[in-house]
Amino acid sequence: MTLLPCEEEVLAHIRPKTEESDHIWGVAGRLIDAVNASGVARGMVVGSVARDTWVRGDRDLDIFMLFPTALPRTDLERQGLSLARDIVRQFGADGREKYAEHPYINTTIGELDIDLVPCYAVEQATEIMSAVDRTPFHTRYIRDRIGDLTDDVLLLKQFTKASGIYGSDHMTEGFAGYLCELLILHYGGFGALLSAAAGWKPGTIIDIEQHRSREFGEPLVVVDPVDPNRNVAASLSSTRMFEFVEIARGYIENPGIDFFFPPHFSLIDQEEFAELLAMRGTHFYALVFEKPDLVPDVLVPQLRKSLEAVCGMLDRYGFVVNRADCTDGEQRCMLLFELLVDELPPVKKHMGPNVFNTVNATKFIEKYVTGTYGGPYIEDGRYWVEITRKHTRVDELLSSDSPLKLSLGKHVKRVMEGGWVLLSGREIWTDEFIPFISGFMQKRSPLLRIRHEQAKKQD
Amino acid sequence: MTLLPCEEEVLAHIRPKTEESDHIWGVAGRLIDAVNASGVARGMVVGSVARDTWVRGDRDLDIFMLFPTALPRTDLERQGLSLARDIVRQFGADGREKYAEHPYINTTIGELDIDLVPCYAVEQATEIMSAVDRTPFHTRYIRDRIGDLTDDVLLLKQFTKASGIYGSDHMTEGFAGYLCELLILHYGGFGALLSAAAGWKPGTIIDIEQHRSREFGEPLVVVDPVDPNRNVAASLSSTRMFEFVEIARGYIENPGIDFFFPPHFSLIDQEEFAELLAMRGTHFYALVFEKPDLVPDVLVPQLRKSLEAVCGMLDRYGFVVNRADCTDGEQRCMLLFELLVDELPPVKKHMGPNVFNTVNATKFIEKYVTGTYGGPYIEDGRYWVEITRKHTRVDELLSSDSPLKLSLGKHVKRVMEGGWVLLSGREIWTDEFIPFISGFMQKRSPLLRIRHEQAKKQD
Repeated sequence: MTLLPCEEEVLAHIRPKTEESDHIWGVAGRLIDAVNASGVARGMVVGSVARDTWVRGDRDLDIFMLFPTALPRTDLERQGLSLARDIVRQFGADGREKYAEHPYINTTIGELDIDLVPCYAVEQATEIMSAVDRTPFHTRYIRDRIGDLTDDVLLLKQFTKASGIYGSDHMTEGFAGYLCELLILHYGGFGALLSAAAGWKPGTIIDIEQHRSREFGEPLVVVDPVDPNRNVAASLSSTRMFEFVEIARGYIENPGIDFFFPPHFSLIDQEEFAELLAMRGTHFYALVFEKPDLVPDVLVPQLRKSLEAVCGMLDRYGFVVNRADCTDGEQRCMLLFELLVDELPPVKKHMGPNVFNTVNATKFIEKYVTGTYGGPYIEDGRYWVEITRKHTRVDELLSSDSPLKLSLGKHVKRVMEGGWVLLSGREIWTDEFIPFISGFMQKRSPLLRIRHEQAKKQD
Repeated sequence: MTLLPCEEEVLAHIRPKTEESDHIWGVAGRLIDAVNASGVARGMVVGSVARDTWVRGDRDLDIFMLFPTALPRTDLERQGLSLARDIVRQFGADGREKYAEHPYINTTIGELDIDLVPCYAVEQATEIMSAVDRTPFHTRYIRDRIGDLTDDVLLLKQFTKASGIYGSDHMTEGFAGYLCELLILHYGGFGALLSAAAGWKPGTIIDIEQHRSREFGEPLVVVDPVDPNRNVAASLSSTRMFEFVEIARGYIENPGIDFFFPPHFSLIDQEEFAELLAMRGTHFYALVFEKPDLVPDVLVPQLRKSLEAVCGMLDRYGFVVNRADCTDGEQRCMLLFELLVDELPPVKKHMGPNVFNTVNATKFIEKYVTGTYGGPYIEDGRYWVEITRKHTRVDELLSSDSPLKLSLGKHVKRVMEGGWVLLSGREIWTDEFIPFISGFMQKRSPLLRIRHEQAKKQD
């Protein structure tokens, strides 16, 4: 495919330099050799390094250790960790045990962030015993086909990174590296992909091997070439998909280097934050608590669940949420709420039983015959009464033990039982959360962020 | 049926006195005679006087003028009005033309409020040419069967009147006189009716003649004995039905004269009103405008429709309505709103088009690329943007021309185009609306009103 001049310019910035490439493959080669030398497993480079689809500055190296399928699972885990620790020690580095579907070792050698992952050497992708066993097949599939499309993959990765939609982790819910590679393969290039994506609708299906074996419910379906039963885009949220559609359209209309080098949210200082609060006139509250020691893919869904639960509670209590978001900092987590209203009158409408539920209706009447603002009265077949609102101020509610009664994630619940800090207004602006708060206050879709920055420059 | 002592006591108060009865029948007799003497129509007493089911103090006398069915409709109206005016003149009274399905004459003779209504003398109820033609059949049906159950009907009427649920007009949506009579006939007495009603559920069907010809959707169905196609309880709202169920239960449990002599809402003065406002902490606003010159059954549905439309608008603008109600005074009408919130921040979330609606999405983006609080951003497949709220104060909204753009009733719209007054807080308490406001502030179902008054007495 012919590239645009701005794309050539981008590639000049992001193609790995020879010395980088030599260095990373040098380390990879020595690690594989060490695995092979063990006699119990075979080493393999996977991921973007193996496929030559890594972007300059990437520091991730994934080495898989393929064990025979005869080995019982517990032995795989034990021998895998033990071998990985041995190798790390040979390199004079420190190993950290981490968990995905099973445990693996993460280490740092020089500037490289390296994962040593045990898996089974299955014959065919359909025989995998755990999800990691599939990775070598992905690597082989792409390596055999990507040919001279590596530049296009690099462009796509940089393009999605710049817009904050690269990565299939739970916080991003964006485009995985493997998904980028398949999209480029399918459409035959970066430009062709963008032209197609500009017209994507929910329910778009891409099935390179034409072997889809079932229905998928996600808005974008890219059937895994090595597994007809799997959607590679399953973890892509519809919001990220549509943001991609949007930047594809924006780029086609007016391509430029801006789309590859991210207009970061400019960070805001506390004074600017206070000014924005005053301008919006809304009420900001944040729950801040200790960060549970979990990998992001376990922690983030729990934070999301907790955020949703607290939003639901605020809503039930009558405090209208305008926006809310959550994040994990280095040490602590934050649930952030912007409310239209943070104080309500003492009167509260309270729903009673159906009128024809005689037993409950009688109990309800006896309970509320006096001491109310009004009622009980009948409306739409039910009793209603006006009682005193338990919390007229949202800070009372969020400081009470009510949040603990919600369906929070298990680990979030545990740390919150140890207490939390309620921040409001300008005191929410705390060092650890400045990028998150800055992003929240300037929420825009990627294309609009670019346009907005351009408009600011022109002013 | 045996009556309870309190019921005997009530009857002693509400049975019409002989002299009352003589007087009303005296007037009725002379009016019928005058109709018959005209030679063009036959006179007939209908309504509760004809059925001997009127309560002492009732002043309503309905005289129907039955014309031959051969007469064209326009002639019926013309001749009917002309005859009625003649008769009114003979009695030295003034006639007012009114409209139901067709025009009739209302007049006052002595203390009696008299309607002279032209209708067709059809042979069978199934041949009626307009709804009023059915009335003579109702009268005959009840008169032929009510026998010694008239006392029970009187009790039921007084019982429902005391609770504010008597009357099938649109404001009350309660029990019509004919419905009361049929219920007593069906169950065989006041006590038997209450025992049955205590167990009523939505979907209760009473079909005395066992001739129902279709399904009805209302919560209580009482098939008209003279028309298998008609539900006599069609205009009974489910709230009024359930309030009746409730007082039936309350009366069975603890019968007493309180149930027949209404514990009126005690009227509140302006100071008490101000105290209640302060205690509730909510925000009261009222739209007051000229009363259109319409019969209540036309006006009330329009007021209700207008009330609903304004509530919907308040909701769309983010002002949460706790309760609302409407009324027509002597000169003016009032729409009354109690709000949890009367001021909102300047930020407003505004929904944009679907992302994959390319044309509209592009327009939306161009429009909102700058000058917003935040966004456009993508969520759930749509664009959203945070713009400046048009009205941050509810008084601005209710003083603007926005209410005029709503689907108000035709006549309400006309008078509101002439302007309205917006009242708030304690200034809402105006002479014309004191009973309405007093009721609104002390909203309770009939049984609870009785219980509440009893509790106050014991204090």
